Amino acid sequence: MSPPERRRPAADRVFLDTASGEALHPAARKAWVAALDGSYADPRRLHHEGRTARLLLDNARAVTAEALGVRADEVTFTASGTDAVHRGLLGLHRGGGRRGDTVVHTAVEHSAVLEAARWSGAPSRVLPVDHLGRLRLDEVDVTSATVVACQSANHEVGTIQPVAALAERVGDVPLLVDASASAGRMPLPDGWSAVAASAHKWGGPAGVGVLVVRRGARWREPFPADDRTDPRATGFENVPAIFAAAAALQAVVADRDTENRRQRALVDRVRAAAAALPETEVVGDPDDRVPHLVTFSCLYLDGEALVTELDRRGFAVASGSACTASTLEPSHVLAAMGALTHGNVRVSVGRDTSAEDVELFLAALPGVVAELRGRVR
Amino acid sequence: MSPPERRRPAADRVFLDTASGEALHPAARKAWVAALDGSYADPRRLHHEGRTARLLLDNARAVTAEALGVRADEVTFTASGTDAVHRGLLGLHRGGGRRGDTVVHTAVEHSAVLEAARWSGAPSRVLPVDHLGRLRLDEVDVTSATVVACQSANHEVGTIQPVAALAERVGDVPLLVDASASAGRMPLPDGWSAVAASAHKWGGPAGVGVLVVRRGARWREPFPADDRTDPRATGFENVPAIFAAAAALQAVVADRDTENRRQRALVDRVRAAAAALPETEVVGDPDDRVPHLVTFSCLYLDGEALVTELDRRGFAVASGSACTASTLEPSHVLAAMGALTHGNVRVSVGRDTSAEDVELFLAALPGVVAELRGRVR
Repeated sequence: MSPPERRRPAADRVFLDTASGEALHPAARKAWVAALDGSYADPRRLHHEGRTARLLLDNARAVTAEALGVRADEVTFTASGTDAVHRGLLGLHRGGGRRGDTVVHTAVEHSAVLEAARWSGAPSRVLPVDHLGRLRLDEVDVTSATVVACQSANHEVGTIQPVAALAERVGDVPLLVDASASAGRMPLPDGWSAVAASAHKWGGPAGVGVLVVRRGARWREPFPADDRTDPRATGFENVPAIFAAAAALQAVVADRDTENRRQRALVDRVRAAAAALPETEVVGDPDDRVPHLVTFSCLYLDGEALVTELDRRGFAVASGSACTASTLEPSHVLAAMGALTHGNVRVSVGRDTSAEDVELFLAALPGVVAELRGRVR
Repeated sequence: MSPPERRRPAADRVFLDTASGEALHPAARKAWVAALDGSYADPRRLHHEGRTARLLLDNARAVTAEALGVRADEVTFTASGTDAVHRGLLGLHRGGGRRGDTVVHTAVEHSAVLEAARWSGAPSRVLPVDHLGRLRLDEVDVTSATVVACQSANHEVGTIQPVAALAERVGDVPLLVDASASAGRMPLPDGWSAVAASAHKWGGPAGVGVLVVRRGARWREPFPADDRTDPRATGFENVPAIFAAAAALQAVVADRDTENRRQRALVDRVRAAAAALPETEVVGDPDDRVPHLVTFSCLYLDGEALVTELDRRGFAVASGSACTASTLEPSHVLAAMGALTHGNVRVSVGRDTSAEDVELFLAALPGVVAELRGRVR
């Protein structure tokens, strides 16, 4: 197969969709290449090559645990963040079966939570959020709950959830925290029974998720078992990718204070400029949020048209629910917040995003919005 | 994270466990590096970077389909070979629910099939094999079957299964073929409804499985759904790894005639030398087999001791069931064949295995066996 060609030089482009997928962190690439020749063997095997792969895997587990502030024996590497969410939610649900039958989750969870809840066949209860997208603690009801799912922060609007307060409220009902939007960028909140995260959200490779199950939590395998090094995971361990994911996490955590400040300032610029556009609503908590993303909605406009026109001018942004971009269905997150569900744009920055990138985008945005408004009126 | 160090120079080692895990094919490494910068974006997104990732994914699908001799729209990339087996078996089982309730599989399937059958909760029926490990066609019973699972070739002893003849016998009952041991090396047999394979078995990266579902076959998602580019898969697409897997498959298929002849001759050497050892049984079909692997069993000896002593002298081989190496439980494959289930060694060669490697191994083997026999007597 011939190597792919860029259809346009990257220098012409401003990529503002890092929350969907981000270029591999240089630390991850370096680790992947370094690990590659020494970690292809089956880490369960007793020979030298197997033991070497096992050492790298255990090393990656220790590094990941330290970066997340958890115990190494609580960390399972899964096939994706989605797989980690499925196993986390359904494993706690199966483990908690004696206390009730109901899966409880907030209205703004990622589709991975919604789909797993649906698949379980159990009754489910949806916890409402306020206009900022934040869980309404006064409306939390965990009657008959086997498990409660709450994200650490929202993947579309950035609002941080009150996980620790929720944990106090739910008492001994197990709590799954989907930390995909914040892992690496922020410490894990307190109170979880299990945590799910996705390496490609912090600059690691795709194909690596992380499931953390608190020692002592009642968790039962929801899917067919396997006989790998980690009883909670299935399939041949992708040691080079896992090693690369851990290296990226370590690197991201090491300079997150600086990088979060920088990214927060970039997003503040976008928030202010979008708020100044006519008939545009900037959604999510302006302060208590993850640093790197913002969503705004333009009245009367179509999200697909906005994405397409911005793309034509060299800017990559997302629109529609993160889980349903292919069809651009209205976002269930925005609907739950009572926000405009059409004409929405999510802008997300990363370590490669410069202030100049953001200024170029903000210089182009009003013209695009005005042009599209002119077409629809 | 510091790059891992080899604990011993590779030049000192002879790696004869390629059937567990093989070094990345150079074509895969090249493709991975080439794809990396252009394929991190979400392939569902409408922007340039998303469309580029989608193009690479579709390109990899087309190349994989061509190499396997199937239609591109029949190919799904999964998280691993195990995931492909689970989805293949359980998806056909769910799709075939109207015809019966029983999952039927041969006695020598990989643990992925056995675990999925167990997880389904359905009654299962095990089809016996002969002393070469080959399915006994005269004892095939598909009464009430929703699905029948039969591997293309056995992963421990190499024996090729009569899949096409089985397909005729089972009529319209859907047939899952686990082609993990042969994909890339041999064309797919006729008669399948679904096929599962694993990229790291042909020199692709770990973390990529392939599920092929025949157009028109009744297949229903057995696990929580997702909204990705391929409705049969779950989780963010690992485009660089998928692209690398396809490149490796294409390269392996291109020179398989030459390479199969070469590897078959190496294994013939091992078979002959092992058969000449005292109280040693070489198992599996000597001729109608995959080219690259052989298992033999040494009476009175312990598999773990053999692996450890050979490893100490620089040779990596496998022992025990491929699915239970960590505990070195007796192989269910060898038990089903009526072969010795202890003291077994699986030797598997690959594109990097030279004739000299094999001669070094065969020069060391009799001494190791004699020494261990001396200890136990």
